[in-house]
Amino acid sequence: MAINRTEIEVRYQETDQMGVVYHANYLVWFEIGRTKYIEQLGFTYKEMEKAGLLLPVIDAHISYKKPARYGEHICIETTLNSYDGIRITYDYTIKNEKDEHLVQGTTKHAFVHRDSFRPTQLRKVNNYWHTMLTKANEEL
Amino acid sequence: MAINRTEIEVRYQETDQMGVVYHANYLVWFEIGRTKYIEQLGFTYKEMEKAGLLLPVIDAHISYKKPARYGEHICIETTLNSYDGIRITYDYTIKNEKDEHLVQGTTKHAFVHRDSFRPTQLRKVNNYWHTMLTKANEEL
Amino acid sequence: MAINRTEIEVRYQETDQMGVVYHANYLVWFEIGRTKYIEQLGFTYKEMEKAGLLLPVIDAHISYKKPARYGEHICIETTLNSYDGIRITYDYTIKNEKDEHLVQGTTKHAFVHRDSFRPTQLRKVNNYWHTMLTKANEEL
Amino acid sequence: MAINRTEIEVRYQETDQMGVVYHANYLVWFEIGRTKYIEQLGFTYKEMEKAGLLLPVIDAHISYKKPARYGEHICIETTLNSYDGIRITYDYTIKNEKDEHLVQGTTKHAFVHRDSFRPTQLRKVNNYWHTMLTKANEEL
Repeated sequence: MAINRTEIEVRYQETDQMGVVYHANYLVWFEIGRTKYIEQLGFTYKEMEKAGLLLPVIDAHISYKKPARYGEHICIETTLNSYDGIRITYDYTIKNEKDEHLVQGTTKHAFVHRDSFRPTQLRKVNNYWHTMLTKANEEL
Repeated sequence: MAINRTEIEVRYQETDQMGVVYHANYLVWFEIGRTKYIEQLGFTYKEMEKAGLLLPVIDAHISYKKPARYGEHICIETTLNSYDGIRITYDYTIKNEKDEHLVQGTTKHAFVHRDSFRPTQLRKVNNYWHTMLTKANEEL
Repeated sequence: MAINRTEIEVRYQETDQMGVVYHANYLVWFEIGRTKYIEQLGFTYKEMEKAGLLLPVIDAHISYKKPARYGEHICIETTLNSYDGIRITYDYTIKNEKDEHLVQGTTKHAFVHRDSFRPTQLRKVNNYWHTMLTKANEEL
Repeated sequence: MAINRTEIEVRYQETDQMGVVYHANYLVWFEIGRTKYIEQLGFTYKEMEKAGLLLPVIDAHISYKKPARYGEHICIETTLNSYDGIRITYDYTIKNEKDEHLVQGTTKHAFVHRDSFRPTQLRKVNNYWHTMLTKANEEL
């Protein structure tokens, strides 16, 4: 799997008084994208949290080309950029239904223990998940 | 203490493309109001959570008179409506700097255990907090 | 059309540190519900705004039975409660995939001019929309 | 003026089920920071919008060191990074009351016309604002 494509509709709540989508909401959309990417690999964030793992964002970059607007159907394209066992980086492209590139971004995450927020190796918690991500990473 | 008055400034993020504050945000402002009300009584939500208590909203009513706008200085007026040991109800009035009444509302809450979400009596967890709220209720 | 059913998945961003969906987000979900209800009648909020109309909330009531949680598939059920040409009231039921009733609510709206925020009769702006809503109201 | 320091308290609404501030909210805090920076220079975003200007984010970078938590008093430190007449870049440091560096970030903005979203030179709209920002930039 090279890419996950997930479609959403802009929510009225996501707009601001500029008449466009508020800039912080693209981070929410990125999160939807990586959630779906993971699901496509065969597991879920909910299961990871149950297993005592969190996957906080440690770095984010967003480049805004053109604002999304209410009424638009949005496509979130998510790809894995890298995975090394303890860190994972995703790339995102946000497009509208005319296939215009609205926003591009990257988020970097570290696997940490839920209680301590200390880094952990994914394979120590669940080797299947580690294998799936390693495979996806090798296919890049 | 009959009333808590807390001032906030409208955040750009809180507006929507109608050019006014998005209607759900008044619930966020109500929460700021009751947080400050409790602090004025001498304790905090954070301490309550540490003690294993949650205070979820079980009912909310909001009446919108006039929209708040970006750039306005807002006053949140919070009063205790009732407290009976397991439930608490607050009333709120949102005003702008011209003292115009923008929004009025009420939220009802139940004290519950953090893990089970089952109702609990506040005095069993902390008698001081119970006493402070009982006093505030009697002064109404 | 008696009812609109729209499915959504809980977003991580919609949770709070109680581990459940933050209470104000149900108003966002209600908005998704009425947006879809209107679309099922054959028009959209976006078209209404283009025609110079806004439909702000003037009253909202929310009753919280049981919290929605991350990972749940949510069904928003929206029904028209009443429409009289200048005001419109919707009822909502939020359910999870086990068909448990999580939240119930009502929102009341007034049609207003975008620039003045003054009330207006829908049929003066668009008679087709007025007719569709009148029909839906009569079928109740 | 080299720096603006603005204090806020974490809102319950800003947390997520990790028990920390949701990562997108730091962009909201950055916005509060630059709003206050501008006010310290003697004008406001509200006035800029009235003059037909918008200042959308065109690029954002966020580096997360340590999560902010509910109950913390947060300091937003905002500095001007650069201003060239049509673009402006701010740097931010988010600290808690123990002076721990939680988050660092940068946002880049372009002055655009409200209706066209096309770039514009600030001095053509308001020379005083241009002068104030130019001075602030030269003092860096």
